[in-house]
Amino acid sequence: MSRGQISRRGLLVTAGATTAVVGGAAAVAVTRPTSSSSSPGSVDYPFYGEHQAGIVTPAQDRMHFAAFDVDARLDRAGLVGLLKDWTAAAERLTRGAGAGPVGPLSGSYDAPPDDTGEAIGLPSGGLTITFGFGPSLFGSGRDDRFRTADQRPASLTRLPHFPGDNLATEQSDGDLCVQACSDDPQVAVHAIRNLTRIAMGRAALRWSQLGFGRTSSTSTSQATPRNLFGFKDGTMSLKAEDASGVEEHVWVGEPGWLQGGSYLVARKIMMHVETWDRSSLREQERLIGRTKAEGAPLSGGSEFSEPDFALTGRGGVPLVDPSSHVAMAHPSRNGGVRMLRRGYNFVDGNDALGRLSAGLFFIAFVADPVTHYVPMQTAMAKNDLLSEYLQHVGSGLWAVPPGARPGEYVGQGLLG
Amino acid sequence: MSRGQISRRGLLVTAGATTAVVGGAAAVAVTRPTSSSSSPGSVDYPFYGEHQAGIVTPAQDRMHFAAFDVDARLDRAGLVGLLKDWTAAAERLTRGAGAGPVGPLSGSYDAPPDDTGEAIGLPSGGLTITFGFGPSLFGSGRDDRFRTADQRPASLTRLPHFPGDNLATEQSDGDLCVQACSDDPQVAVHAIRNLTRIAMGRAALRWSQLGFGRTSSTSTSQATPRNLFGFKDGTMSLKAEDASGVEEHVWVGEPGWLQGGSYLVARKIMMHVETWDRSSLREQERLIGRTKAEGAPLSGGSEFSEPDFALTGRGGVPLVDPSSHVAMAHPSRNGGVRMLRRGYNFVDGNDALGRLSAGLFFIAFVADPVTHYVPMQTAMAKNDLLSEYLQHVGSGLWAVPPGARPGEYVGQGLLG
Repeated sequence: MSRGQISRRGLLVTAGATTAVVGGAAAVAVTRPTSSSSSPGSVDYPFYGEHQAGIVTPAQDRMHFAAFDVDARLDRAGLVGLLKDWTAAAERLTRGAGAGPVGPLSGSYDAPPDDTGEAIGLPSGGLTITFGFGPSLFGSGRDDRFRTADQRPASLTRLPHFPGDNLATEQSDGDLCVQACSDDPQVAVHAIRNLTRIAMGRAALRWSQLGFGRTSSTSTSQATPRNLFGFKDGTMSLKAEDASGVEEHVWVGEPGWLQGGSYLVARKIMMHVETWDRSSLREQERLIGRTKAEGAPLSGGSEFSEPDFALTGRGGVPLVDPSSHVAMAHPSRNGGVRMLRRGYNFVDGNDALGRLSAGLFFIAFVADPVTHYVPMQTAMAKNDLLSEYLQHVGSGLWAVPPGARPGEYVGQGLLG
Repeated sequence: MSRGQISRRGLLVTAGATTAVVGGAAAVAVTRPTSSSSSPGSVDYPFYGEHQAGIVTPAQDRMHFAAFDVDARLDRAGLVGLLKDWTAAAERLTRGAGAGPVGPLSGSYDAPPDDTGEAIGLPSGGLTITFGFGPSLFGSGRDDRFRTADQRPASLTRLPHFPGDNLATEQSDGDLCVQACSDDPQVAVHAIRNLTRIAMGRAALRWSQLGFGRTSSTSTSQATPRNLFGFKDGTMSLKAEDASGVEEHVWVGEPGWLQGGSYLVARKIMMHVETWDRSSLREQERLIGRTKAEGAPLSGGSEFSEPDFALTGRGGVPLVDPSSHVAMAHPSRNGGVRMLRRGYNFVDGNDALGRLSAGLFFIAFVADPVTHYVPMQTAMAKNDLLSEYLQHVGSGLWAVPPGARPGEYVGQGLLG
């Protein structure tokens, strides 16, 4: 390749790699991973569709999540312009292309490249980019510069303060959010970086979080991964194959601009892993309510067996503690609601005492946070035995608009 | 699997995975990655050997690096005990086993598990664990509790202050260091976490760093990856296949406890990516001295062509700027010395102005930092055009003892 020709990633890739494009939920089956890195680069997910990708898409291995605040001078037309630009870039990025035409192909050597370059030659690793609108994007009264005040769904408010919350402003909320997931972290970082660059002057990065290991499966084809307590996590999480469950618990059904969309709940949860690691195996299993090895309920069976909360052992003590994590999170204790969980493990270095700054970046997609998240988290923050080892330090809620179709932009139903 | 049997990872893996164990440098050839995630889980590297693994081993995709300070009360026997325990655990971890016998297999449910569990079922992803000894581990005068003062190699001192350095104590130095590399970040994190746990009361984590994308190839079988400036990095880095180059520039040759070992130079380098992204492609290529697309020297040819520093263009201006990165780092400008580079890209979130806290965690293995690193970095800090976009915020130097043989522990030559 001669100087002056910076091909888009797609062009470079076609030379040697086998990039299969699959279209739609019927084709989401992937090979069962034997590693927390599943086979990267084997699949591209289409950006356009009825729903945004990155929700029922089989959870990729790595994540870069970012929250943005729009510039105080941005008006409705400016916001539409940003969403159009983001849509166009996201569509390119998810098929393994650069964020935009690059350098000399599009213009001059004297302009900055329209793609930052660190993903040149890399397949998408199943990259998905999912956009959300925070409560603060919706104005009220005199401050309604986007003319969206009367379009704010009633459930889109800041999450309430839960017992034990120790939230940092700089890790919470944001007018917009972008969830970039890929089996290749360099690709996810590249996506957030380029979307940040595109937003310059219109929206600024408020906070961001890298996750290195997924903590949930969103497909029955995926093995259940482990969280940093060393336990399988998300066994009960909704799976994409459960079409009626997804319809009921994930997608917003009410007519309106959010129909076919969802809500994204994010919680940055620090885990006191050093304290946990000094507790006995018996104690760990009691608090979780499952065995550490297989993830089977302590009432018996295997990982996917239903826990039997009535079963008692010596002295009539329930085998599964009613305040264990599995009991507190069970649909039977939560009015039958279920969540599609899509969180990631993180480590942000360590504190001055040598303790890892580690935890779970919890993400769930739900049809309504008021029914599907707030009651459960209220109960768990009060009574979950695990709470002693956890601290919630970041929080955010965003409405996730439905997918865009070719020619549309994400959020067109709200702003179009 | 019944409750009470937490198999070691190795046992779990043999059920379905194909884990090939290769022995020695002749077998290090791996498939050329088409992604920054190469095929994980395909190989285990033996821990024991003439040299420590993780140096000429083909660079894995992800890294967790940690520096430790030993406890003020630790004596020589205590240090030996720690190194024996770390050696035993590292040998287990690198073959995909847990850090130690787990829970009920080794004792009681009432003890904490000897492995934290988050890597149960995961292959090693080519995990290597490499240990180093910092200058501060060696006493002097009255404070020589390890009785090592007269064993400190003359080149093992704190690196000098370089122009532009803005080093943070909490990201620099340390009595001991551990470099854990794997294609699977969860495996690398698991290794550091368990070694930290094992060290409790004897050494404490001082600082740690995750890297998500390797920035160098250490084998001719690997494609050159890209740094966060979007350029291929490490093209000129020594490769494992260059046996005489490795012998001359990586391994310590002088007789003594460090013979067959090396020095690990670590530098945490923040990269002002937002400023970089606003500079023109022409400027970017001039500063690097290579094309962005292919990484060819601006004097022509392809990636691995030797740059021709004498070649001039219009007005007699050299095609490769003498202050470009490629020129400053070239062996011809540095007394013929070469480095085996093994660094990683990182992103630690963002700052309050919305700029990514991103950069390069530079790691190089050299036979002598006094000849192989200090002169080059002194010149580059002063004159490298790239310095405008960089800031060194962390630094460390460690002597890396030779490998241990079965029955030995790492550092036995020094302390045995």
